[in-house]
Amino acid sequence: MSLERYSQKMLPAVEAGLKETIQRMIPDDFAELRSMLCYHLGWEGERAGKEAQGKRIRPLLVLLCAEAVKSPWQSALPAAVAVELLHNFSLIHDDIQDQSTVRRGRPTVWARWGMAQAINAGDVMYTLAYAALAGLRETVSPATALQSSEIFHQACLKLTRGQYLDLAYETRQNLEIADYWPMIEGKTAALIAACCELGALAAGADAAAQAAFHQFGHYLGLAFQVLDDWLGLWGDAALTGKSTASDLVTGKKTLPVLYGLSRDGEFARRWWSGPIAAEDARSIAKLLKTEGAQEYTQSTAESLNRQALEALQIASPANEASNALSEFANTLLMRQM
Amino acid sequence: MSLERYSQKMLPAVEAGLKETIQRMIPDDFAELRSMLCYHLGWEGERAGKEAQGKRIRPLLVLLCAEAVKSPWQSALPAAVAVELLHNFSLIHDDIQDQSTVRRGRPTVWARWGMAQAINAGDVMYTLAYAALAGLRETVSPATALQSSEIFHQACLKLTRGQYLDLAYETRQNLEIADYWPMIEGKTAALIAACCELGALAAGADAAAQAAFHQFGHYLGLAFQVLDDWLGLWGDAALTGKSTASDLVTGKKTLPVLYGLSRDGEFARRWWSGPIAAEDARSIAKLLKTEGAQEYTQSTAESLNRQALEALQIASPANEASNALSEFANTLLMRQM
Repeated sequence: MSLERYSQKMLPAVEAGLKETIQRMIPDDFAELRSMLCYHLGWEGERAGKEAQGKRIRPLLVLLCAEAVKSPWQSALPAAVAVELLHNFSLIHDDIQDQSTVRRGRPTVWARWGMAQAINAGDVMYTLAYAALAGLRETVSPATALQSSEIFHQACLKLTRGQYLDLAYETRQNLEIADYWPMIEGKTAALIAACCELGALAAGADAAAQAAFHQFGHYLGLAFQVLDDWLGLWGDAALTGKSTASDLVTGKKTLPVLYGLSRDGEFARRWWSGPIAAEDARSIAKLLKTEGAQEYTQSTAESLNRQALEALQIASPANEASNALSEFANTLLMRQM
Repeated sequence: MSLERYSQKMLPAVEAGLKETIQRMIPDDFAELRSMLCYHLGWEGERAGKEAQGKRIRPLLVLLCAEAVKSPWQSALPAAVAVELLHNFSLIHDDIQDQSTVRRGRPTVWARWGMAQAINAGDVMYTLAYAALAGLRETVSPATALQSSEIFHQACLKLTRGQYLDLAYETRQNLEIADYWPMIEGKTAALIAACCELGALAAGADAAAQAAFHQFGHYLGLAFQVLDDWLGLWGDAALTGKSTASDLVTGKKTLPVLYGLSRDGEFARRWWSGPIAAEDARSIAKLLKTEGAQEYTQSTAESLNRQALEALQIASPANEASNALSEFANTLLMRQM
């Protein structure tokens, strides 16, 4: 079965699980609060729909890893719902922290409901993630449910520690390429690794297979973030939904930027001379490319993707779902690059 | 054993548990992040110490309820640590939402580290609460640990829903006294009820006793908040740590205010005529008293406290810890009123 076919089967179940969790946990007396969550998840409000929902990459990974270990994947559904809620909690808070007013082409939650309610909407989303995860009690043994909680809150912890680094880096001047890895390991890879591990665990994987699935997710997550950095500088604005080279304008310490700074050339001089205006971003992105940052970033992403696929081979016997996971990893890497 | 004697035995264990959780979960590479948490908990920075730490009422309740069910109380310690971390997560976010720059006589986390890092510090504290709760795996059965998680995230959910109402009420004009209860049930009582239930559960209480302990905490929590509202208007500034009648200046929809508005008299006219300046707060608090709000608030608190004590009688056999819980309830009610 192809990745697309799996997605068509799995994602409606994820969407239903997300909706059911919110309906059950946020009663009608809290209609406005529920609206904030449903708006953020892309179901309500202006331009609601597929585009606004995001790709649901994380729950799909949970379910594909479960299926790769042992069909059917349904026992992992509570974990799939939980990771998507967790991811969206982090997006709501992220947007406040970055003062971003637009996400997926629509006003962010804080831009619509104010900062105070948006902080709380994020907190609610986070709580719902834990509530959804507790649904594993119905699908796996108590011991497995507890182990899943452990994986989950370790991922939460790494996520929030990674966010600390990301925020702290904004004002740090002496960053090296080596500082990049712990930050994205926390911000991006930890949750994706947890997705793969949780899926495998729910399907009954043994400790060795769990660890291998974790490794797969870890490298996949790193590759994913490095690629995101690539797209943030050289991606097609129409496809990424952000303006061209916008990461340069916001001053983010991405991998290509840290690479460029380590070169200590023309780009570095320009970077340290002050904030980059939107109209200069494209030419500075080109400059960074001539200094080798694009090639470096691309080959780093490719190498991480290779490591992910090697881990997958160790993790999973050759089966249809495992093939779909390879396809998934390659699709992620190929998007618009 | 007196309440004081129990506190002397239990609270150092709570403090040690809090410190151990933070040490274990936030490694040395994240020293600044750890400082934010340790500062907020009153251990570090300017004027660190007992005063800055708060009273640790919630973990004490967990442990006393455990002890009332079955000595020794140590099996409930992970839950005690978890509820204190959860409470402090909510305070960190609360201070951002209310734009409060001072808590317990010191700058708030966001006032010191900025809004973005403070949102994240709250998220980390929340995550640590779940991580601490997971420690129950070492002290109780897997089934009890899972049930504790369920109680915990239900309390988290009510807490965040209550916070939604509190924020939403700021701009609502048509509030009645009846609207007050769901708000404080969520914001204050749900967590205190969970404290009592978690303590009892960890000590092996059956379902009926758990429910009765929950009821005890529920009424105690309501009484606690009503009293807090009383103190916010007529409390001794030196003892409450806030300026006199400060709740009037911030425009909070407390019970005495909602009572005064429902009278539709001189106070209501003054309230609706515009924000209350600090220099007018004391005289308006007096006005509210002459309209009966002080007596109403006090008798409501007393009645709730009575209900709490009745629930305690049902929940717990007469023993030393149960006596300490009664003492605890009465002490809460007597503070400065």
